[in-house]
Amino acid sequence: MTEPTATPEFRFALHATDGQARTGAITLPRGVIRTPAFMPVGTAATVKAMYADQVRDLGADVVLGNTYHLMLRPGPERMARLGGLHRFMRWDGPILTDSGGFQVMSLSALRKLDEDGVTFRSHVDGSAHRMSPERSIEIQGLLGSDIQMQLDECVRLPAPPEAIEKAMRLSLRWAERCRAAFGEQPGKAMFGIVQGGDVPELRVESARALVDLDLKGYAIGGLAVGEPQAVMLAMIETVEPHLPREKPRYLMGVGTPDDLLRAVERGVDMFDCVMPTRAGRHGLAYTRHGRVNLRNARHAEDVRPLDETSRCPAARDYSRAYLHHLVRSEEILGMMLLTWNNLAYYQDLMAGMRAAIREGRFAAFAEETRAGWAQAEAAAKAGA
Amino acid sequence: MTEPTATPEFRFALHATDGQARTGAITLPRGVIRTPAFMPVGTAATVKAMYADQVRDLGADVVLGNTYHLMLRPGPERMARLGGLHRFMRWDGPILTDSGGFQVMSLSALRKLDEDGVTFRSHVDGSAHRMSPERSIEIQGLLGSDIQMQLDECVRLPAPPEAIEKAMRLSLRWAERCRAAFGEQPGKAMFGIVQGGDVPELRVESARALVDLDLKGYAIGGLAVGEPQAVMLAMIETVEPHLPREKPRYLMGVGTPDDLLRAVERGVDMFDCVMPTRAGRHGLAYTRHGRVNLRNARHAEDVRPLDETSRCPAARDYSRAYLHHLVRSEEILGMMLLTWNNLAYYQDLMAGMRAAIREGRFAAFAEETRAGWAQAEAAAKAGA
Repeated sequence: MTEPTATPEFRFALHATDGQARTGAITLPRGVIRTPAFMPVGTAATVKAMYADQVRDLGADVVLGNTYHLMLRPGPERMARLGGLHRFMRWDGPILTDSGGFQVMSLSALRKLDEDGVTFRSHVDGSAHRMSPERSIEIQGLLGSDIQMQLDECVRLPAPPEAIEKAMRLSLRWAERCRAAFGEQPGKAMFGIVQGGDVPELRVESARALVDLDLKGYAIGGLAVGEPQAVMLAMIETVEPHLPREKPRYLMGVGTPDDLLRAVERGVDMFDCVMPTRAGRHGLAYTRHGRVNLRNARHAEDVRPLDETSRCPAARDYSRAYLHHLVRSEEILGMMLLTWNNLAYYQDLMAGMRAAIREGRFAAFAEETRAGWAQAEAAAKAGA
Repeated sequence: MTEPTATPEFRFALHATDGQARTGAITLPRGVIRTPAFMPVGTAATVKAMYADQVRDLGADVVLGNTYHLMLRPGPERMARLGGLHRFMRWDGPILTDSGGFQVMSLSALRKLDEDGVTFRSHVDGSAHRMSPERSIEIQGLLGSDIQMQLDECVRLPAPPEAIEKAMRLSLRWAERCRAAFGEQPGKAMFGIVQGGDVPELRVESARALVDLDLKGYAIGGLAVGEPQAVMLAMIETVEPHLPREKPRYLMGVGTPDDLLRAVERGVDMFDCVMPTRAGRHGLAYTRHGRVNLRNARHAEDVRPLDETSRCPAARDYSRAYLHHLVRSEEILGMMLLTWNNLAYYQDLMAGMRAAIREGRFAAFAEETRAGWAQAEAAAKAGA
């Protein structure tokens, strides 16, 4: 297999499968996204506490930008005048943006939803804004996003089936409008988002209707919003057979390392989540040996690094005692090092999954990986 | 002149002078400190928002650790068990520690001073602590400090002459006790601290008495504590003739770039200050062209970097518009980039001064440097 390279048109190619698990590559003008891929979240034009070069060096091929945050600050028209998000944040690889809808509903004030979109006030300065399917696509275009998402309505679970159905149908109508607004942009893509909460019939209906729109990729949205992992996995299993094999599938806002393993096992290609970055700012490290809460006093005199075999300096070169001290002292360097460690772990996990799928040993890889995690959990229990 | 290298004993050599300005090198087992030197402040075992490698790469030869913070967290005995401060924070160059006295008086609670030392409560957890001259030296030894400071009493200005005199005499008695406690440590040094507030006679008396103790270096303390710059400079001029030419002089807690220029001009060799790091965390950049307040709206669409000729990526590669956005959004990356920029500027300023002294053009260098600063101040005024 030759290494994939950037292509003038958005393309997706599968290179190998192992059960339902798949590995391949999205290619587009700005580069190559090796799948399964984890996209670090760069909410406000920065992956928090990281230099962009570091993110790239960890093996991340794509980052996610949040349309809601960027439309409020610095604003889409201003961003366009400044040359777009890539140049602004010094990230020359692909960028995926969400539609802004999820965070309008979770962060903004005085929001009012109607058939045509949503009116809301900024959580930053209280200013009034309007988001419609067309405006979301326009904003994502002004940002310069390579992979854009349809505007949708996402319902927190648990929710009554009527509310889930209503939001799913509205999201389908908005998908059509977003598709029309996006038009033909060969080097870019717009993905649809399967909704339907935890109701299998609604999930299937949503997936089928979106596939009829012949979009370039399909996301599964409205999961990891309060439901148990088993429900999330069941919904992936429900939707997956209805998604075309030759297009990428993106599970939005997910998740823990175990979520990633289990979702890849079920055929998912792309993920984004604030977990590694947010946890890193709160003293929690993800490692081969499981999660390590550096705030815990048992690390105060532990001279071992988080992982002496890691290629990431944050994992390899600093003692747990020092990390503990930095976390307890609320030092910025603690956030920098743990974010770095966590993103390194997530990228290494994805690279490990890609290799395992190519080599037809995904199940064994998943088992070894889970066995490794059990070590730190056992140590934490013994120390408590 | 051959490049100085590390030496088994603490030494100071002058290489050139230009008027009162001096350039030279302190050599000791852990390396070489080129003077005049600016020491970035690594309060709690980290130069805030910087990786230690970055600090080194900027040309900093030595960092300062704060004994007060480190005695409270992680604690000196624990630090010694962990192998000392150098190993803990991954800084293998020289470290200077203050005595802890200044911050006991400014940060702790319920402090009570007597002839033998000071009793206080931690600002972190309220725990009770005792600091004496002997304990300060013991703690600095446990930390592994290369250049240790005597315990002193520093009086905020303005203050009545009686209070200044009393504190100066107590500091002298403590200098003797610290000297005895420090004993003979050939690869390390303990510096005395000239006190005496803004009273010239007291400053001279303090300097003479300390010089009689034949210490390895002399600090000027109790300045930059509320007095005008002219008073600070006058006190340096008062003290300087009484300090031995062949020993380093360290102006504690100073200062702005202009303070550094004027103090070097008056014969000072070493400085430390939180200004570049603290300002960087609050949106203020120091540049060749003066100070730039990135919070100001006039930078919102300015695509220029802070200094396109800088060797520091933070100064050279990021637009002011992006820095403005990061500062306004309170992003950690904004603090990281501006701290990096500011420390780069401070180190470049020191390198420029060292070169100018060697080449006998310090006055011209100072004039050019001040003319450069005037540019941004003028631009800010025009934009306001």
